[in-house]
Amino acid sequence: MDLDIIDRTLWQVRELLTNDNVAGAIYLIKGLLPADQADVFEDLAPEQQQALLPEMDPDEAADILEEMEDEAASDLASQIAPEMLAYIVDEMEPDEAADLLGDLDPALSQATLAAMAEPEDVRPLLLHPDETAGGLMTSEYLAYPQQMRAGQVLAAIRQWPVRGHDSAYLFTVDREGRLAGAVNLFDVLRTDPQMPLSAMMDRDVLKARVDDDQEVVARLMSRYGLAAVPVVDADDRLVGVITVDDLVEVLEDEATEDIQRIAGTSPLEQPYLDAGITSMAWKRMGWLLFLFFTALLTGSVISRYEGLLSSHVILTVFLPLLIGTGGNAGSQTTATVIRALAVGDVALYDFPRVLWREMRTAIVLGVSMAALAFPAVLLWGTSPIMAGVVALSTIGIVIWANSVGSLLPLVAAKVGIDPALVSAPLMSTLVDAVGLLIYFNIAALLLRA
Amino acid sequence: MDLDIIDRTLWQVRELLTNDNVAGAIYLIKGLLPADQADVFEDLAPEQQQALLPEMDPDEAADILEEMEDEAASDLASQIAPEMLAYIVDEMEPDEAADLLGDLDPALSQATLAAMAEPEDVRPLLLHPDETAGGLMTSEYLAYPQQMRAGQVLAAIRQWPVRGHDSAYLFTVDREGRLAGAVNLFDVLRTDPQMPLSAMMDRDVLKARVDDDQEVVARLMSRYGLAAVPVVDADDRLVGVITVDDLVEVLEDEATEDIQRIAGTSPLEQPYLDAGITSMAWKRMGWLLFLFFTALLTGSVISRYEGLLSSHVILTVFLPLLIGTGGNAGSQTTATVIRALAVGDVALYDFPRVLWREMRTAIVLGVSMAALAFPAVLLWGTSPIMAGVVALSTIGIVIWANSVGSLLPLVAAKVGIDPALVSAPLMSTLVDAVGLLIYFNIAALLLRA
Repeated sequence: MDLDIIDRTLWQVRELLTNDNVAGAIYLIKGLLPADQADVFEDLAPEQQQALLPEMDPDEAADILEEMEDEAASDLASQIAPEMLAYIVDEMEPDEAADLLGDLDPALSQATLAAMAEPEDVRPLLLHPDETAGGLMTSEYLAYPQQMRAGQVLAAIRQWPVRGHDSAYLFTVDREGRLAGAVNLFDVLRTDPQMPLSAMMDRDVLKARVDDDQEVVARLMSRYGLAAVPVVDADDRLVGVITVDDLVEVLEDEATEDIQRIAGTSPLEQPYLDAGITSMAWKRMGWLLFLFFTALLTGSVISRYEGLLSSHVILTVFLPLLIGTGGNAGSQTTATVIRALAVGDVALYDFPRVLWREMRTAIVLGVSMAALAFPAVLLWGTSPIMAGVVALSTIGIVIWANSVGSLLPLVAAKVGIDPALVSAPLMSTLVDAVGLLIYFNIAALLLRA
Repeated sequence: MDLDIIDRTLWQVRELLTNDNVAGAIYLIKGLLPADQADVFEDLAPEQQQALLPEMDPDEAADILEEMEDEAASDLASQIAPEMLAYIVDEMEPDEAADLLGDLDPALSQATLAAMAEPEDVRPLLLHPDETAGGLMTSEYLAYPQQMRAGQVLAAIRQWPVRGHDSAYLFTVDREGRLAGAVNLFDVLRTDPQMPLSAMMDRDVLKARVDDDQEVVARLMSRYGLAAVPVVDADDRLVGVITVDDLVEVLEDEATEDIQRIAGTSPLEQPYLDAGITSMAWKRMGWLLFLFFTALLTGSVISRYEGLLSSHVILTVFLPLLIGTGGNAGSQTTATVIRALAVGDVALYDFPRVLWREMRTAIVLGVSMAALAFPAVLLWGTSPIMAGVVALSTIGIVIWANSVGSLLPLVAAKVGIDPALVSAPLMSTLVDAVGLLIYFNIAALLLRA
């Protein structure tokens, strides 16, 4: 991940291409790892990408297309002749190949499949939506009939070439192709060659269904530390395997989405620097506008108290402070609960426990802050009554903010909405408006008394 | 991850233990997977944990201690006699064993090591800080001299039992024990038994140094899709291997920390439901108090404009709206940039590009919002001049918020501070105070004109 090297290579490749030295450019790119090659490629002009890719070895071109962002890869692939593209796609991992072909124009995708040497690896994968276990799995895995003997399995591995099989696990199936178990290659090597797989396999294998959501599968793999998870169809037949590199990608994307949603922006579909300006603005506009208009409601709350405010302008001074405290306390709670739900630390049946924890936390927080706020506001130069208004409002607002902040994600999860999606904006609106009501009512009570 | 089953088992185990039926309780727990067993265990009373653990098979007790949260595991282990504990720790993965022993009282840790059958696997791992590659790696990996032949390696694997080796990769070393390369077991099986490893190994192996930060290693593994990464010392000698389950844990913890920090709370060290109330309140107090006191400064800004405010109380009505818009736009930018930095989509040299992107996004956002805000505020019932003040302030505040929101994480990263740690609170303070100045100055200019 030495980004300097990527930048230097990019600069040199551009220079070489300006002088039509394609061979030199390819030589430089070859010196990098695939993820870095893809980074360099993505930063080249489309014409340069189209000039370079067909000149590279198909397996290296395949690595680059696999590592490029989906959109950039399909943009590039659509500019290449189907016969040429077929050579490259044949060298890709079947799951990556299916992702790419699924993103292409159907006519081009069909033409490419027709020109491929091994389309049968990829074709079934095209049937599954991207965000499911079926969309994540590869059709290139090792599975053997459970009645096979250890020695026969070793002989089969010797005869049938497997490309970069990272995991030491092999799966076993029964006569109907249903998943039966898993064996570790190290154990197969060590056991008596006459031992059938059925006698040595682990039968309690965790598995995913083709239509399972990819996040559910990722959680399963991370919770139980699985390096690979077999995928079965409705009849329990083994149809694919999800490997750990896919898991990491899903977990990373999921966390990124949650972070962006908690901060009130729809998830970007591309890496930050590749997203268009209008698309970025658009993704952020929704929440900003929603809050803008709900803030007009908050404004209506304020305008009802214009009399109080014009007789005590000092109340305005503490408005940002109290709104801010409510918003911050609410965000802390919402983000903490959303993440706890996402990583599985909290389940829906923990609802009452979470609420009870947040209420107690809010009381500790509110009272401590009020104890510090009272002298601070006094020293700042107001009357003791005004300091009391601020201190009491702080307690009320923090308790309210933590209640709303914990309830919203839990309710969202209960009714099946992504908690990160709705909690932050709704929380902010509810906390602002009600917080002001708490403040003004305490003020009216104490200042008029 | 069927949480219902965990809950039901927990309830039944408690019932059985109340009737002193330890064997029955163990039988029920055995039916679960280790991660689920640990969940049940963590929810039992300490006396119940201490009664159960020594009665279980050492390898099952080891699985449970591995899967329990670090603090809960060390609390439980400290209550067990060192001779008993040694049996269990002998069955743990060396890296997990080292983590546990490192968390214990040194006297107990020494006594346990002294009673262990294989302390030499664990002892060297105790030297490395938890958050480094050395703290993450295991000493249980397969490495062979590069001059060994494929057939000899297979014979060695047959003779020397390896426990649950998930990865198909073996590492090779030279005569000085320095990392030479990596080979895939499938290739070793398939090649001529007389072929030396040095003739078939991949020499360009990505590796980590023992003292590398664990996040750097996790990023390396996720970027290049590595299932296992070898760890070398200062002399390039192979000393351990980091496996993918550790990677997933680091990535998850890192994302959780970032989410909590972005929302202004110090990261919780335990899972949500295990954290104490005062510890939770304490972790959130810091930011709340900081913002509370900086909001007093914002209040000072307001009190300077008391004249303007008392002559135009309507200005107060739009205060929460404009402060909110600034805060929201700033949070969106900060969170997006922090995450882009964390996953490597943005590097420090992208500084100018990021700023330029955010400025353009801010102009698109600000102008669009102002165009909608002007009629909305007018319809809400104010003068055209007041609506103009709100619209112009919106543009100014959004541009300011996006600039601050993108600059702060980049500057923090540049000077080597975690961007998630400082950006959110500082952003909020700067945006609030300056945002009000923008608002009041535009108001003073237009309303007095």
